[in-house]
Amino acid sequence: MINKQILLIARPDNIPAPEHFSLVEADYPRLPDNGLIVQNRYLSIDPAMRGWICDFNNYLPPVEIGAVMRSLAVGEVIASNNPEYKPGEKVTGWFGWQQFAGILPQQVLRKVLPSEGSLSASPGVLGLNGITAYEALAEIGRPQKGETILVSTAAGGVGSLVGQLARLAGCRVIGLTGSDAKVAQSVNDFGYDVAINYKATDSLTDAVAQAAGQGIDIFFDNTGGEIADSVFPLMNLNGRVIQCGTSAVPSWNSVPLAPRRERYILTKRLLQQGFVVFDCLPKWPKIIAALAQLLKNGDISYQEDVREGLNNAPDALADLYKGNNRGKTLVKVEH
Amino acid sequence: MINKQILLIARPDNIPAPEHFSLVEADYPRLPDNGLIVQNRYLSIDPAMRGWICDFNNYLPPVEIGAVMRSLAVGEVIASNNPEYKPGEKVTGWFGWQQFAGILPQQVLRKVLPSEGSLSASPGVLGLNGITAYEALAEIGRPQKGETILVSTAAGGVGSLVGQLARLAGCRVIGLTGSDAKVAQSVNDFGYDVAINYKATDSLTDAVAQAAGQGIDIFFDNTGGEIADSVFPLMNLNGRVIQCGTSAVPSWNSVPLAPRRERYILTKRLLQQGFVVFDCLPKWPKIIAALAQLLKNGDISYQEDVREGLNNAPDALADLYKGNNRGKTLVKVEH
Repeated sequence: MINKQILLIARPDNIPAPEHFSLVEADYPRLPDNGLIVQNRYLSIDPAMRGWICDFNNYLPPVEIGAVMRSLAVGEVIASNNPEYKPGEKVTGWFGWQQFAGILPQQVLRKVLPSEGSLSASPGVLGLNGITAYEALAEIGRPQKGETILVSTAAGGVGSLVGQLARLAGCRVIGLTGSDAKVAQSVNDFGYDVAINYKATDSLTDAVAQAAGQGIDIFFDNTGGEIADSVFPLMNLNGRVIQCGTSAVPSWNSVPLAPRRERYILTKRLLQQGFVVFDCLPKWPKIIAALAQLLKNGDISYQEDVREGLNNAPDALADLYKGNNRGKTLVKVEH
Repeated sequence: MINKQILLIARPDNIPAPEHFSLVEADYPRLPDNGLIVQNRYLSIDPAMRGWICDFNNYLPPVEIGAVMRSLAVGEVIASNNPEYKPGEKVTGWFGWQQFAGILPQQVLRKVLPSEGSLSASPGVLGLNGITAYEALAEIGRPQKGETILVSTAAGGVGSLVGQLARLAGCRVIGLTGSDAKVAQSVNDFGYDVAINYKATDSLTDAVAQAAGQGIDIFFDNTGGEIADSVFPLMNLNGRVIQCGTSAVPSWNSVPLAPRRERYILTKRLLQQGFVVFDCLPKWPKIIAALAQLLKNGDISYQEDVREGLNNAPDALADLYKGNNRGKTLVKVEH
């Protein structure tokens, strides 16, 4: 039995593309001591992946050239040397872009219970995306009833949940996204009061100012870059800026220039803070339970953009940076 | 009796200079209903003044052209229509660049008690500077024993106190300043472990990296600009950046460009926050009492740079931005 894998073969200067990856047929993995073998069902395609494959300073060591692409995934235990895990159980964790993963228990993030429903939800709304949206909004954003929040990548895996959670918190919710279809989806499906196609404005600052009316109290920033530059002048006194991603900045190999922000930060007493979801691992079970309850109550919903076949993972990732996704991107692994 | 005043007559593009001000002889002020007349003794010369006279967005409305220059000062009540204040009492507050101020009680920040000792300390170590250093360090910096803090304007009115307070908190304290004399003063008088003359380095990043050894946990930033750009790459995980001033940026009339910081903020989970001392007015009495106790115990010391004569106020302000000050700048008003 063989194991199809996708290896990183080159570091992108800018946005990852298929030429940076290679599909290979490897041997079926051996079962590690105390470990398990997982058959991957869905791969989670995340904006953070670009950071993992570049050399620029980051929160995880870069994926090595020639290694299986790092990825969160969800799958089924098909063999186990570890008493904690039994064949047939579903797990989510660091299983990589491959059909089968021979892993150690520390690569498992958690078991997925049958009661959670759809398996594909576990890397998204009940995984990285949901936990990021929930925790970053609560801890850094601290939304108050009546405040106005702006979310970049409004229709993405994280943004689509931030919009709904902020609305539940009583905020006026404005979204930025990159197509008219995603504008409609943001308003119709994800709880946004207003959504703006940032590619279709003459001045994004003017468009946001008009949509906001009284300025922005919370900026949930998944993009950074020029989009974020347009928002800073509109921040209100004591505003909070959650730096959750930098997907709009094509490269950090040489750090690009931007309008200075010190004066806004000082005079408006802004708080800007970076958020990486792996910092709050001990809180994950509680947050996942809260999200599962919100889902069950119908208070939040999610949309998935599922691509079929392991070989389509590089294209799915490239599409994410082009904005060609609707909701959470997943790759369904064939077996 | 006349009242010498200094009026703002033009807005500087960059750094305030004597030509933006005019010394005039006005009438002695009338005593307002419910108000008082204060004879100014010392004017407080503060980096924040540049912000008060420019049109750029700020935390106070700009001083109008033709108006007496806004300034904190300390002086003696010489006439009062208000039962709260008696002639002979000393007060500090918004009295402006003039010999005598006819003011309303809301322009008084507080009474200065005879037990506080030197009158000139009240706008400095027991005023804006001390409160800023104390509160911003405690609330945003949250120093932990063994951490490394970097302070820009190490020998200035605020920085000289931050250095000493951070050392009391058990931090390794590194200062940036603009002359070899101020380097010596920072180390000898203000508790710095190392001070760096930023004008004399080839690479400020390299110099700070070497002085810090293990990176920077807290950056108390009074300058912004290129100095701050040099520090960001050295920030440690979960670092805090206190944006307390932007004195190194000559003009905000068109917002200057700088290397983007989003990636540092995200990957290092930095927290950057603006601090304006007037936000914590209710806490001032408690903070002043704490600072007075530290002074009395000999735990902190301060240095004053006193200029003689109201007419020297514009030069004193210009010197502040040129770095030609040593400790807290004050103007002693003649009578």
